[in-house]
Amino acid sequence: MSKLIHTKDLNFLLYQVFDAEKLTELNRYSEHDKTTFDSVLNIAQGIATDYFAPHYAKADQNEPIFDGTRVTTIPEIKTAWQQYAASGLLSAQHDYELGGMQLPTLIHMACHAFFMSANPSTAAYPFLTAAAANLIQAFAAPQHKQTFLAAMLDGRFAGTMALTEPDVGSSLGDLTTKATPQADGSYLIKGQKMFISGGDQDITENIVHLVLARIQGAPQGVKGISLFIVPKFKTLVDGSIAESNDVHLSGLLHKMGYRGTTSTVLSFGENDQCQGFLIGKAGDGLKYMFKMMNEARVGVGLGAAMIGYRGYLESLDYAKNRPQGRLVEEKDPFSKPVNIIEHSDVKRMLLAQKSYVEGSLALCLFAARLIDEHQAADNTDSAVLLDLITPVVKSFPSAYGPKANDLAIQVLGGAGYTKDYPVEQCYRDNRLNPIHEGTYGIQSLDLLGRKLWQHDQQGLKLLLQRINRTLDEVNDDTSRKIANIFCKHLATIEKTTNILGSALQQGKTKEVLANSALYLDMFGKLLVAWLWLEMVNKALKAFKDSTHQEDINFLAGKIQAARYFMMWELPEIEHQAKRLISFDDTCSMMQKDWF
Amino acid sequence: MSKLIHTKDLNFLLYQVFDAEKLTELNRYSEHDKTTFDSVLNIAQGIATDYFAPHYAKADQNEPIFDGTRVTTIPEIKTAWQQYAASGLLSAQHDYELGGMQLPTLIHMACHAFFMSANPSTAAYPFLTAAAANLIQAFAAPQHKQTFLAAMLDGRFAGTMALTEPDVGSSLGDLTTKATPQADGSYLIKGQKMFISGGDQDITENIVHLVLARIQGAPQGVKGISLFIVPKFKTLVDGSIAESNDVHLSGLLHKMGYRGTTSTVLSFGENDQCQGFLIGKAGDGLKYMFKMMNEARVGVGLGAAMIGYRGYLESLDYAKNRPQGRLVEEKDPFSKPVNIIEHSDVKRMLLAQKSYVEGSLALCLFAARLIDEHQAADNTDSAVLLDLITPVVKSFPSAYGPKANDLAIQVLGGAGYTKDYPVEQCYRDNRLNPIHEGTYGIQSLDLLGRKLWQHDQQGLKLLLQRINRTLDEVNDDTSRKIANIFCKHLATIEKTTNILGSALQQGKTKEVLANSALYLDMFGKLLVAWLWLEMVNKALKAFKDSTHQEDINFLAGKIQAARYFMMWELPEIEHQAKRLISFDDTCSMMQKDWF
Repeated sequence: MSKLIHTKDLNFLLYQVFDAEKLTELNRYSEHDKTTFDSVLNIAQGIATDYFAPHYAKADQNEPIFDGTRVTTIPEIKTAWQQYAASGLLSAQHDYELGGMQLPTLIHMACHAFFMSANPSTAAYPFLTAAAANLIQAFAAPQHKQTFLAAMLDGRFAGTMALTEPDVGSSLGDLTTKATPQADGSYLIKGQKMFISGGDQDITENIVHLVLARIQGAPQGVKGISLFIVPKFKTLVDGSIAESNDVHLSGLLHKMGYRGTTSTVLSFGENDQCQGFLIGKAGDGLKYMFKMMNEARVGVGLGAAMIGYRGYLESLDYAKNRPQGRLVEEKDPFSKPVNIIEHSDVKRMLLAQKSYVEGSLALCLFAARLIDEHQAADNTDSAVLLDLITPVVKSFPSAYGPKANDLAIQVLGGAGYTKDYPVEQCYRDNRLNPIHEGTYGIQSLDLLGRKLWQHDQQGLKLLLQRINRTLDEVNDDTSRKIANIFCKHLATIEKTTNILGSALQQGKTKEVLANSALYLDMFGKLLVAWLWLEMVNKALKAFKDSTHQEDINFLAGKIQAARYFMMWELPEIEHQAKRLISFDDTCSMMQKDWF
Repeated sequence: MSKLIHTKDLNFLLYQVFDAEKLTELNRYSEHDKTTFDSVLNIAQGIATDYFAPHYAKADQNEPIFDGTRVTTIPEIKTAWQQYAASGLLSAQHDYELGGMQLPTLIHMACHAFFMSANPSTAAYPFLTAAAANLIQAFAAPQHKQTFLAAMLDGRFAGTMALTEPDVGSSLGDLTTKATPQADGSYLIKGQKMFISGGDQDITENIVHLVLARIQGAPQGVKGISLFIVPKFKTLVDGSIAESNDVHLSGLLHKMGYRGTTSTVLSFGENDQCQGFLIGKAGDGLKYMFKMMNEARVGVGLGAAMIGYRGYLESLDYAKNRPQGRLVEEKDPFSKPVNIIEHSDVKRMLLAQKSYVEGSLALCLFAARLIDEHQAADNTDSAVLLDLITPVVKSFPSAYGPKANDLAIQVLGGAGYTKDYPVEQCYRDNRLNPIHEGTYGIQSLDLLGRKLWQHDQQGLKLLLQRINRTLDEVNDDTSRKIANIFCKHLATIEKTTNILGSALQQGKTKEVLANSALYLDMFGKLLVAWLWLEMVNKALKAFKDSTHQEDINFLAGKIQAARYFMMWELPEIEHQAKRLISFDDTCSMMQKDWF
């Protein structure tokens, strides 16, 4: 087993649960087969193992330094970046004619999983760059593509998303960065941005910031926001760089985790010399940014899942090899100590982790599958469903990945609290994920206030269709028992959703949204429970073809983890539903002066 | 409001809920009154504010350094230690004739609360020393008291607990450190100890280690363990120090949090020159250590509560002053942003924190009250009840304090993830508490496997008596509604406990203990819910005498937090009880090869 991911699990998810090979029937992916998929996955695993994993702790202990002029990062980050860029993974999903490999998102996401497990803060640089490049590719004018895209895809330039401002936080409609039109069609950009990941570094020649700003005279609020390409250094059409573009690093933020990724406060246009290029139409900035943001949200979910996964594997390894104590039924206090994996409470902590992280990874790969169905097969249903579940794909792993990391520390005990093992760093790194790219609360409002009801609730109907397909495949006592529990709680969710929907129609927005975080959690548990049921179906099918004991063990573990999730985690839905359908106002009625 | 604790809350708990003044009717405390209590509390608050809080972040960012010869800590720690020692708080609970102030534990614990909120890792040095001194005072021979006690109480010597060994962890019966009797009645100590907090430092002249070791020829297991005083430097009867006692620092452990407290690997007797002095009777080591350990466990609970409390106050302050976004019912996107405390989801996160941390503090003060009832009024019932709840007093705050810190970060969002605010440090510091002084799993086995059934279940009966007294005092619609919810879940706990008890009698130890962690959590929630109901009763009573709006607001907040805990947290008991009474074997049946 790799220390980054359970290989059997990844193969099971890709080829049995999400049927990656089926994707090769689509025109776009027709040059691929399982061999090409596996070879890309091998390359990703190799680079992640050789160039990302080794400096995981070092990058944490030697965070980037800003001396007032330049930022310095440890050299291993640049080497990792170069290896990543050289592998072609930055443009893996692009068309063949653009130098890409037309790789399905499903496989690409699985490649990402290795890097997120190995070293999420180093992986942030290429991942942000790929996302920014995708946005430029999709919406920028041809001359700007020419100037920036090739340089980003071959690793000379990096990319960032520059949304947040110091006084604005999540409330993007209030942002104040200004863009003033110039005679040559470009804009002068002026304003401050905060929490910009990768906003400065010493890894690439140039950095391409995608900046949200307001064109002079544009309307207030979100409709007045446009998106601009703003390079750190002025860039010629051939991609060569010239003088500073008046983008300045005001300072680095010092974080609890993810310390290898610079988090920056940037000042644009202090000297009124900062040139930006409008992407697409004025006023459509948020629309474009949300394309990137939605990708980024799935990426955050994957990161949270994989940091959780890494911690799980570390704690599993420890538990299998650490002798301590005796079983409670052991009468002889002088018998040989057992390995701690034999203790029931340790099994609980490992099983909970397994159910969270493998379920989270399945959720992210499901989202990837939907992206492929939409982009390569033009399946709009898949797009609608993806739209519905994006807040969940971001949030479930961000809530349960850190829970897994918490349990991983607990399995190791005192050792887990020290820097001698990576689990404490996983715990710190993962704490970012419920915050960035839209906090948990923001996601919950997005789901319950908007996504559920869009397209005449088509997203939910499509999800239920898929769920019913899974239920139809249940044909065995083992799976039927698990499915019965699932169905009971599914009914609760459906009922709760209907009640909340009716209340919204009656204008009770405030009452419905008051407890939105509860809904997001219950909806997330349902979605992941469904995927666990799907895994059970596929595992039972695979049992029939399995002769190796290792395979049989793996499949038995899948079923036991599904049981755990269904019996231990999912039933909390009932209590949450009660709060929701009674429009419990305990929190909303709390007055600020009462605290 | 102090930034360390909500003063109204502390006063409410001390004087209304736990009736501290009533303690002055006891002979031991008869020289005290509210004025003396308040003046000690003021001293504690002053020292905590002036000498502990200011270097909270600095001690974290400059952890102790070991150059192979000496340990160096930042000088602020030594200054804080000296101020603490000079205040008389180290011996505050001792008899007047020993230079103490015969302070009730309840008030002493409230003093501790300030230090734990201000700077738990610096507070660890005096707290460990006081606990070690108490043990020496209780069990050591007169000549050893003479040698060590005065020096510890006046702050010249510090103290530690040296239990754990590298290969032993929580399984103390397996420890191997050896003690060889010498002609002069002392012992030669030889062995390695790990995770020893404060095991070396540059703060005090000498360090008095209380070391568990096995006398040559002693029986295997826990019965062969004895306790020894082992100073870092050999010490003359008058307390002056001589040459090294062959205690060596092998290394410092580098931790995720609590970084100001050294965590050490110690080597005793590398050169066969390490002298130790037996405390009390050979073979009774664990018994004595458990006296100290039980105190330490309550102390851990208090630390977890107060680190949670500190984070709560920080996030409350931020939420009250940070404008961002608009209410969901606000139709005008251009209206002025509200402070985030107005958002329902932020209220939820603050209210949850409030219910956890104020409930946890109440639980710890309740334990302190029991200690006083036992020690000063010789009430054995109180001792029996304290014995029952000690694992809960250690564990509930250790589980819910970190949850509060997690929510505090979330309230601050991106800012909370940076080192610009203390909440991320609180989160890291608090993660130690479910581990040290007996992990969560160990505590759960102690509660469900032992404490519940001791003394013919007298502890539980006494608890129910107290609960019924609280229920009898419910005389108002507001409290009755809250009490009704409580009673429903109380019945579930009683039923669950009976079923588990019967199963234990039938020898089903393994099945009953398999899910002990669930029981500990549900029992903890019940205990804290009871204390919330008690607080509601007292708040409703206080309402009648309150004319100041601030007081009325405070009491309204207490009632709302009780509602939250009762309606949002307590009902999880039902789901947990189902798992327990069905002897759910999902975890215990998981096989190690299936992971």
